[in-house]
Amino acid sequence: MATPSWTRCHIISLADFTPDEYDTVLQTAASFREVLSRRMKKVPTLQGQVVANLFFEPSTRTRSSFELAAKRLSADTLNFAASSSSLTKGETILDTAKTYLAMGTDLMVIRHRDAGVPQAIADEMDRLASNVGVLNAGDGQHEHPSQALLDLFTICSLLDPERPRLELLKGKKIAIVGDILHSRVARSNIWSLTAIAGMELHLASSPTLLPQEFADFGVGRSGQLQLHWQVEPALENADFVMTLRLQKERMSQHLLPSLREYHQRYGITRDRLQACNRGVKVLHPGPANRGVEISSDLMDDPEFSLISQQVTSGVAVRMALLYLMGGGKA
Amino acid sequence: MATPSWTRCHIISLADFTPDEYDTVLQTAASFREVLSRRMKKVPTLQGQVVANLFFEPSTRTRSSFELAAKRLSADTLNFAASSSSLTKGETILDTAKTYLAMGTDLMVIRHRDAGVPQAIADEMDRLASNVGVLNAGDGQHEHPSQALLDLFTICSLLDPERPRLELLKGKKIAIVGDILHSRVARSNIWSLTAIAGMELHLASSPTLLPQEFADFGVGRSGQLQLHWQVEPALENADFVMTLRLQKERMSQHLLPSLREYHQRYGITRDRLQACNRGVKVLHPGPANRGVEISSDLMDDPEFSLISQQVTSGVAVRMALLYLMGGGKA
Amino acid sequence: MATPSWTRCHIISLADFTPDEYDTVLQTAASFREVLSRRMKKVPTLQGQVVANLFFEPSTRTRSSFELAAKRLSADTLNFAASSSSLTKGETILDTAKTYLAMGTDLMVIRHRDAGVPQAIADEMDRLASNVGVLNAGDGQHEHPSQALLDLFTICSLLDPERPRLELLKGKKIAIVGDILHSRVARSNIWSLTAIAGMELHLASSPTLLPQEFADFGVGRSGQLQLHWQVEPALENADFVMTLRLQKERMSQHLLPSLREYHQRYGITRDRLQACNRGVKVLHPGPANRGVEISSDLMDDPEFSLISQQVTSGVAVRMALLYLMGGGKA
Repeated sequence: MATPSWTRCHIISLADFTPDEYDTVLQTAASFREVLSRRMKKVPTLQGQVVANLFFEPSTRTRSSFELAAKRLSADTLNFAASSSSLTKGETILDTAKTYLAMGTDLMVIRHRDAGVPQAIADEMDRLASNVGVLNAGDGQHEHPSQALLDLFTICSLLDPERPRLELLKGKKIAIVGDILHSRVARSNIWSLTAIAGMELHLASSPTLLPQEFADFGVGRSGQLQLHWQVEPALENADFVMTLRLQKERMSQHLLPSLREYHQRYGITRDRLQACNRGVKVLHPGPANRGVEISSDLMDDPEFSLISQQVTSGVAVRMALLYLMGGGKA
Repeated sequence: MATPSWTRCHIISLADFTPDEYDTVLQTAASFREVLSRRMKKVPTLQGQVVANLFFEPSTRTRSSFELAAKRLSADTLNFAASSSSLTKGETILDTAKTYLAMGTDLMVIRHRDAGVPQAIADEMDRLASNVGVLNAGDGQHEHPSQALLDLFTICSLLDPERPRLELLKGKKIAIVGDILHSRVARSNIWSLTAIAGMELHLASSPTLLPQEFADFGVGRSGQLQLHWQVEPALENADFVMTLRLQKERMSQHLLPSLREYHQRYGITRDRLQACNRGVKVLHPGPANRGVEISSDLMDDPEFSLISQQVTSGVAVRMALLYLMGGGKA
Repeated sequence: MATPSWTRCHIISLADFTPDEYDTVLQTAASFREVLSRRMKKVPTLQGQVVANLFFEPSTRTRSSFELAAKRLSADTLNFAASSSSLTKGETILDTAKTYLAMGTDLMVIRHRDAGVPQAIADEMDRLASNVGVLNAGDGQHEHPSQALLDLFTICSLLDPERPRLELLKGKKIAIVGDILHSRVARSNIWSLTAIAGMELHLASSPTLLPQEFADFGVGRSGQLQLHWQVEPALENADFVMTLRLQKERMSQHLLPSLREYHQRYGITRDRLQACNRGVKVLHPGPANRGVEISSDLMDDPEFSLISQQVTSGVAVRMALLYLMGGGKA
C-alpha cells in the first residue's frame, strides 16, 4: 500500500484533526480491514519495531485490541500494567516512559486515569528528540481518540464499505446519549462528528451529566452541535445513536436518582428508536451495562447494533494509526 | 503432515469422544512431539491466526502450556486474565467472548470456575455462525479434557512411543485415587479410560470424596468402572496410578479428618505401590501437595513418576488439539 | 557473528567471572548494540527456543528488558508472575521450575526475593542433566549480575564505543554510594569492578548501611576496594559515581535518620560532583527516588547522567547473555 501523507507524530486529541487526516485514517483502516479478511492476517510493516502498551489504568479490551493490531503489523509488543510496576517504588510516570524509550520502544500506547498524561509523555519524547510516537488510549475524562476514530470508521464503512470517508456524514444526524460529562469517548467523538459542515451532532443527558458548558465544544466547528436535556429530540430522525457506559458510582455522587430511573429516562430501547430514521444504528463503546444505558435485547439485535462491528473496526483502525505513526521512520 | 479427518469444532467434554477421535489426537500429538524434539521447535501451521486464552480463573501452568502450544504453531496469542478485566465493570462473560470474537480470534481456550461456561460460549459462537472453536481448559468440577488427553498420551506413549493408541490400554488396570468428587480432571479421565472394551478403571477415595453416584459414569461405557472406599483393592495389580490434588479447604468443609490422616489412608507411597504390577507408573495433574496425596520422594523418583512426562505431553497434545480444531479453516 | 568461546551454563554470580568472560560479554553486547541501531532490530539466533521469565518477585523494568532481549533474538517467551501462580496452591519453587523445564524451556531467567533460589534451580537443572541455562535476575540481597554487566558495558562503551573491554578501567576510580548493605546490585558490581589490577573501587555510606565486613569482599581481588563512612573521600577524583536506590522502609528499621538528612549526607548532587574528575558520570540502577539518593536535576542532566544509556545497554547485554548461554546448544 502506498504510504499516504501523514505528518502527525503523536495522536493525543482529535480537537485539531483535519478532514484530510480523518480521511487518511479511514482509507488506511479500510486497507487493513481487507488484510484482516484474509486467512493470513499479518503484514510485515512494523517488523523489528517495538510497541509498548503502557496501561497505568487497567484495561483488557483496549489493551488486547492494540496488542493484536501491533502483532498483525509484526511488531514486538511490551505490556506494562500499573499493578506490577515500579510506580509503587516511587518512580515517576515520566521516568517509566523514559525507561521504555531507552529500551528501544518505537511507539507508546498510553492509558492513564489522569487527563494530560499522554501529552506530557509526548512532550518529553519531543524534548528528548526521540522520534517516538505517543498514542493516547484514554486519559481521564479528556480524550480517547482511537475509540472515536473506530466509531467513525464503523459508521462510514456502513455507508460506503469500499470508500469510507468523512463527507458521507453530510446530512446525517447523530445522537450521543448518556453520561457525557465523565466520558472521554464522548469528547473525542464531539470533535470527529463536527469536523465538516453538514454533520449534525446532538447530545442528550440529564443536566447533571451534560452541563451547558458543553455547548462551547461546538464553537468554531464546521458541523453543528446541539444539547438536549431530554432524549426524545436527540433521537428524532437520528441516523446513528451512540450510548455511553454509565459508571455506577455516579449514583453515590448524587448525579442521578437510580439505575432504573436512568434507564427509563435515558436508556436506549427498541421503542425509543421508533422516533429515529429507518435503518437507524446503535453504537456503544463497551463494556455495556445491559438494561441501564441500553436494553439487553437491543444490544444483541444485529438489525440495530453495531457493537461487534465497532470492536472489529478497532483492530483495523489501530493498525492504521500505528502504521501511520510508525511509517515516517521507514 | 496429512490432515487427519476431524469434524469436532469445540472440545468441551470427552463424554462423547469416539475411539477414532482419541486415536487421531494421540497420533497427531505424536507428530508434534517429534517437532518438539528438534532444535527449531516451531511449525507455521497457525500463522496469522489468533488464539485467545480466556482464563477467568487464575492459572499459570495450564495457561503457559496452551500459550506455548499456540506459539509453536506460529499463532498470535492474546491472554485475558480475569483480574484486570471488564468483568468488574459489569460486562457478562458472553460479552467478553463476543468482544474477542469480534477482534478476530480464531480459537478460544477457556477456563472458568463454573461448570458450563465453555459450553455456553461455544453455543454462542455457533449461534453467531462464527466458525470459532472453543476449547475447555477446565470448568468448575465438570471437565478438563486436555488434561485427560495428555494423561492418555503419556500412558500410551510409554506403551508404544511410535504409535500411541487407545487399544494399548486393553487389559490394563488403572487406578485414580484422591478427591474425585471435586475433580474435573477425574471426570474427564473417567471418559477416556473407559472408552474401549478391555480397559479397567478403578476409583478409590473416602465415601465423602467418592459418592456412590460415580458408579453411574460407568453405565453404557465400553470399559469397566469400579469404585472402592479403600485404596488397597484399587492398587492391587494396577499398571498406572493417578493421584489427584487435594484442595486443603476440603478439611474445613469437614470432608476429611486431617491431612496427616488423609495421607495415611489415601496417600500414594512407594510402600503402597508394592501391591501394584511391576513397572507401575504414577501420574499427578499438578500442582501437587507433597506429602499429602503423594509422598515427596515418590514424586521425584523417575522409576515411578510420569509427572514430568505429563507436562511435556501437555504441549504436544495441546498443539494437536489447536491444530485439529484450527485445521478445518485452512 | 562468530560464536566466542563460552563454557558457563548458568549466570548466577560474578564472584568467579574471569577477565576473559567479562570481555566476551562486552564484545558480544557491542555486536548486539549494533543490531539494535538498525531499523530491523531482530536476529534469528534463538528462533524456536523458549526463554521463561520466572519472576517470583514483581518487576516491570527488568522483566521487560529480558523479554525484549529474548524477542529480539527471535525466542518465544513465557512470563511467569508469582501473583497468578500455583505457589499459592502449595507447589514448591523447584516444582514450578521443573514444570517449565518439562514444557520445553531452554533458558530460565529467575528473580526471587530470597538469595540462593536461582542457584538452587540451576543445581536442580544440572542434577536432571537438562542442559537448561539459568540466569539470575536478582536474588534477595545476593546478586544481580546482568545489572552489573550492563553497568560495566555502559562505562566501558563510554571509554571506547568500538571496543569496550575491562582493561579500559585501569587507573579509573569508581565510587558506589548508598544503601550498599541491602543491595544485590552493589554486590555484583563489587565483583566486576575489582576484576583486574589497576581498578579502584570506593564504597561510601553510613556505618549502618556499609558494615566493616564489606572490606572482606576485596580480599584476593585484583582490583582495589576501599570503604568510607563519608561520601567526600569516595567522590574525590572519581571518574564514575554509582548511586543506589534507598528503600524507604530502611527508616522504620532505624537504619537512617530521615530521607532529608540522608540526602544531605549521601545524596549525589551537582555540587558534590565538583570534587570528582572532569567528565565524571553518574549511574543509577533505577528506579530512583528523586531528591533522596540523587538530586532530580542531576538525574535528567545528560552531561552527567548515564541512566538512559544503562537501560539501553541492558537490552544489548541481556541479548549477549542469552546468546552466550543458548549458543552452546546450536
